[in-house]
Amino acid sequence: MEPTRVMIGVNQSSIKGYPYPSISSQRAFEWTLQKIIRDNTSGFKLVFLHVQVPDEDGFNDMDSIYASPEDFKSMKNREKKRGLHLLEYFVNRCHEIGVACEAWIQKGDPQETICHEVKRVQPDFLVVGCRGLGPFQRVFVGTVSEFCVKHAECPVITIKRRAEDTPQDPVDD
Amino acid sequence: MEPTRVMIGVNQSSIKGYPYPSISSQRAFEWTLQKIIRDNTSGFKLVFLHVQVPDEDGFNDMDSIYASPEDFKSMKNREKKRGLHLLEYFVNRCHEIGVACEAWIQKGDPQETICHEVKRVQPDFLVVGCRGLGPFQRVFVGTVSEFCVKHAECPVITIKRRAEDTPQDPVDD
Repeated sequence: MEPTRVMIGVNQSSIKGYPYPSISSQRAFEWTLQKIIRDNTSGFKLVFLHVQVPDEDGFNDMDSIYASPEDFKSMKNREKKRGLHLLEYFVNRCHEIGVACEAWIQKGDPQETICHEVKRVQPDFLVVGCRGLGPFQRVFVGTVSEFCVKHAECPVITIKRRAEDTPQDPVDD
Repeated sequence: MEPTRVMIGVNQSSIKGYPYPSISSQRAFEWTLQKIIRDNTSGFKLVFLHVQVPDEDGFNDMDSIYASPEDFKSMKNREKKRGLHLLEYFVNRCHEIGVACEAWIQKGDPQETICHEVKRVQPDFLVVGCRGLGPFQRVFVGTVSEFCVKHAECPVITIKRRAEDTPQDPVDD
C-alpha cells in the first residue's frame, strides 16, 4: 500500500524572517503530525513546498550594492539559500520522527504556484496554515488558504493558528 | 494518547432514498479510511452525524393518512428510523474494520446543525462530501461544504465525488 502523500505549504516568519517558519505553517505541520500521522510514520510521506515571492523592485537586501548582473544572480542564490534553511527545519523534524519527506522551492505567486504544484505532484491532500484573520483584515491581506480551498485539484485542509500563538498584530506571523 | 476524533457528515442518496448513503458521503467515508486512518485503526474515532431536514409541509409520505397528532408522531418516528438505517451502514463498516465510532441524528438545517454540533462535540476535524458542482449549479443547490469550511470551529476537509461516480444529473446523488 502506497503511503498517503500530504503536501504542506510552508513560508517564513514575517517577523523573524528566514530561516524561521511562520507560526501558521509550523502549526499546520505539527497538527498533521499529531492528528493525522500519529505513530503511523510509515503510512505517510510529507511533501513540503515553499513558494518565494519575487521582490517587485529587486531590492531585498538594502545593504548590498548591485553593480552587475552577477550581483543580482548572487542575490537570487542567497534568497534561495534562505529558503533552503527554512525547508531544512521541516526536513530535520521529519528525519527525527522517521517520516519520509521531500521539499522544494518555487518562485512565484504563492496561491497560483501551490495550485500549479498540486496539479503536477498530485498529493492525496494539501495542508495549509492560515492566520485566522477576521473578514475586515482578510480583505487587505488576501488569504492563500481560501484560494487553495477553491482552486486546488485535491482535498485541502486549512489549519488555523492557535489564539495563544497569535502575535499582537494578527497580520504578522 | 487520545484517538483523533473525526466527524463525518452523512446523508441519504437523493436518488435511492433511505437507507442508501449519498455517493458523496460514502466517498468521504471511504477516503477517510483509505488516506487518513489506513491501518492505524486504534488511532482514530469516527463520529457520524446525520442531519434530517424537516419536511416543510409535513407530508413526506404521500400514501399515508394523517388524521391525528399520533399519526404525525408515528411519521416522525418512521423518518428517524430510516435515518438510523443509514447510520447502521456506516457503523457496520466501522465494526468490520475495527474502528471505534459513534453516530447520531439531528433535525434541522444541515449546514447550521453540522456547525452547531462541531461546537458541541469538538472533533479534531470534520470531513464532508461534496458533489463538485460547477459555479452555475452551486448557486441553485447551495453547498453545505462551503458553509462548513467558512463557519465550522474546527479544520474541515471537503471530499469531492469522483467523476466516474457522478450520476447523469450532477445535482442528484
